[in-house]
Amino acid sequence: MRKLISPSQAQEAIFQMLARSPSIDCPIDQCAGRILREHVRADRPFPPFNRSMMDGYAIRAAEIDVSGTFKIIAQAPAGAPELTLGNEPSVCAEIMTGAVVPSDADCVVPYEVTRQIDETHMQVIHPKDHAAGDFIHAYASDRPTGEVLLAPGIRIGSREIAVAASCGCKTLLVSAKPSIAVVSTGDELVDITATPAAHQIRRSNDLMIDAALKRRDLPAAQLAHLPDEPNACQAQLQALIAQHDLIILSGGISMGKKDYIPAALDALGLHCQFHGVAQKPGKPLGFWSHPECAVFTLPGNPLSTLTCWHQYVLPALDHFMGHDSPPIPPQLSLEAPVKARDDITIFLPVSRKANNIASAQPANNSGDLVRILQSDGYIELPPTQEKGYPAGKSFDFHLWY
Amino acid sequence: MRKLISPSQAQEAIFQMLARSPSIDCPIDQCAGRILREHVRADRPFPPFNRSMMDGYAIRAAEIDVSGTFKIIAQAPAGAPELTLGNEPSVCAEIMTGAVVPSDADCVVPYEVTRQIDETHMQVIHPKDHAAGDFIHAYASDRPTGEVLLAPGIRIGSREIAVAASCGCKTLLVSAKPSIAVVSTGDELVDITATPAAHQIRRSNDLMIDAALKRRDLPAAQLAHLPDEPNACQAQLQALIAQHDLIILSGGISMGKKDYIPAALDALGLHCQFHGVAQKPGKPLGFWSHPECAVFTLPGNPLSTLTCWHQYVLPALDHFMGHDSPPIPPQLSLEAPVKARDDITIFLPVSRKANNIASAQPANNSGDLVRILQSDGYIELPPTQEKGYPAGKSFDFHLWY
Repeated sequence: MRKLISPSQAQEAIFQMLARSPSIDCPIDQCAGRILREHVRADRPFPPFNRSMMDGYAIRAAEIDVSGTFKIIAQAPAGAPELTLGNEPSVCAEIMTGAVVPSDADCVVPYEVTRQIDETHMQVIHPKDHAAGDFIHAYASDRPTGEVLLAPGIRIGSREIAVAASCGCKTLLVSAKPSIAVVSTGDELVDITATPAAHQIRRSNDLMIDAALKRRDLPAAQLAHLPDEPNACQAQLQALIAQHDLIILSGGISMGKKDYIPAALDALGLHCQFHGVAQKPGKPLGFWSHPECAVFTLPGNPLSTLTCWHQYVLPALDHFMGHDSPPIPPQLSLEAPVKARDDITIFLPVSRKANNIASAQPANNSGDLVRILQSDGYIELPPTQEKGYPAGKSFDFHLWY
Repeated sequence: MRKLISPSQAQEAIFQMLARSPSIDCPIDQCAGRILREHVRADRPFPPFNRSMMDGYAIRAAEIDVSGTFKIIAQAPAGAPELTLGNEPSVCAEIMTGAVVPSDADCVVPYEVTRQIDETHMQVIHPKDHAAGDFIHAYASDRPTGEVLLAPGIRIGSREIAVAASCGCKTLLVSAKPSIAVVSTGDELVDITATPAAHQIRRSNDLMIDAALKRRDLPAAQLAHLPDEPNACQAQLQALIAQHDLIILSGGISMGKKDYIPAALDALGLHCQFHGVAQKPGKPLGFWSHPECAVFTLPGNPLSTLTCWHQYVLPALDHFMGHDSPPIPPQLSLEAPVKARDDITIFLPVSRKANNIASAQPANNSGDLVRILQSDGYIELPPTQEKGYPAGKSFDFHLWY
């Protein structure tokens, strides 16, 4: 490891060195969750006509007299062209929600406040309660033609799909997904299908990272395992770097005699942006890059891997795809005082309780995978000269994926 | 519409009538985001051996004398079988993180606090700083064999995948995904690929719901559009009901002359659990069911559709799949006072600001699709005898998908 840097310096270094993913055309029904890379403009006014907001009758408000009686002369269902009421006074059209208001009507009176007198007449119950404009969603009142409705850099959710569909977008320009390899290391690890010997354990970090990626709709293109042997390790890394945009590696990056990864990345011509962050868990975190590929080296203990994935890799993936305005995280306040350090940032697993309360769920150690199940996410405790932070103090909360 | 019921009565009625989805075996690498339907137990202790937590040296703590010197007699890399130090005094094994601690060692001393004297000797710098147990993740200290690690009903995230992989689960029993049809209605709607006439608009609700479903990994099996004509409408509905577990329908359920859906569902033998909820937006919400199919009828205005999807359909999907412990929602407090009603619940679009503040983003009307883009989700304002709720009052917040 080199000189320790702070978590915010680490994130800045990652953002600076990451390329921006190319953009591609995507069918609109496949765009949910992706990052938009174009402007979507209103191709017509919103709404495109005077639209009835209720089921009832379209009238001319000035014609409501003491009797409140109108003759029903037409039907205006949704989907029918615009009508006119014409020159006869005190006539109305029966109208449905979403239908075009007749060109010479200016008020919609809902069924609920009328009485049907006979087949061709209705009466407004409280004549004084109605005015021009009532229940008419007026032409262009929401947005004029040409106005930007959706801007590049947003994540496309259900609302954005609806707006784009309304504007006739059959495809949208979105960020291409990066090709990601998830790589584990460590000769103590055996495949999930194997029966481990007493001194072995099954591999789980790679599946954990792949699952977290899948929950962001970014499944890994390849899962690989590197042996604890320098030449074989370097050769495999070289092939992976040539094939993928991003490599997320866990283990093999600490001070152990078998931690060949840093030297292998250096030898392959990647530049070490940092190796070692003033944080717990995850101190040995590193980041290597060259113009075609970026490599995150996450510490191999499960809690360290998980925390570094959420704190560094996830924002980096968003940044890579041009999503630069992530949502504001919720804040949780401490249920009880917690210890902190004056030299490092602590990422503390917590469970989320009612009323935005965070209950600390510290792991016994960063290898304690099962204990993490009791937390819902983590909060970030920056270094402090105090012994720790008091109950009630609030911190940004990040949910585990 | 029938008698209005409260939002909580509506949710209860839905939960009571919904079937429970069958469970299926799923390969572990496809389980992210799904609902677990079995117990996962530890097949070995966690951890399965005395595991070194650091790179350094494994020693017998009682042998640290004033000099702190030890002879290095062995290497203990991760993945190698258990060693013994043997009978010679003041010897140690160089050990890597994740390796098995020698059977007769009881303390790991990290490199950082040692000095290498020569090729075969190291010195502990502060002899008094170390004790038996240091940096050893003890055998079975996290969990014994057979203990339940994962219980049915949880949503499987990255941590659960890691735990299941550690236990050798190649597949997991999870809830089958329901077959869902998303159905729009309304003769004013044309396909996204068509050029709408002046009185028409493009269909967007069905794509909006499908996108929201896709963001939950539950893509619709079929999208359909019903005409505003009773016989054709009923025949198409019958076919859809026969083919799908759930139908999410938007539009055609209000009081309009062309709102044929309620009668068609009744005629097809489905039972109306409710039709009409004391809420805004979304008053005409309805729910029909029979043993093989449940039909949500959402009002067709985009904000109504979206709100009802989040408030009713999403929890119902979780319930259908056996996920009965949804996460606690964050609470946001009002930035400014808001009006409320004494008779209905208001679902208010809000944007989320820093420090858990909710800024109201009311729509001009429930047809105002574009305005919804300025909100991040909504809060639920129950009826109150007061004029409204004061600034600072907190409410559960639900993010738009």
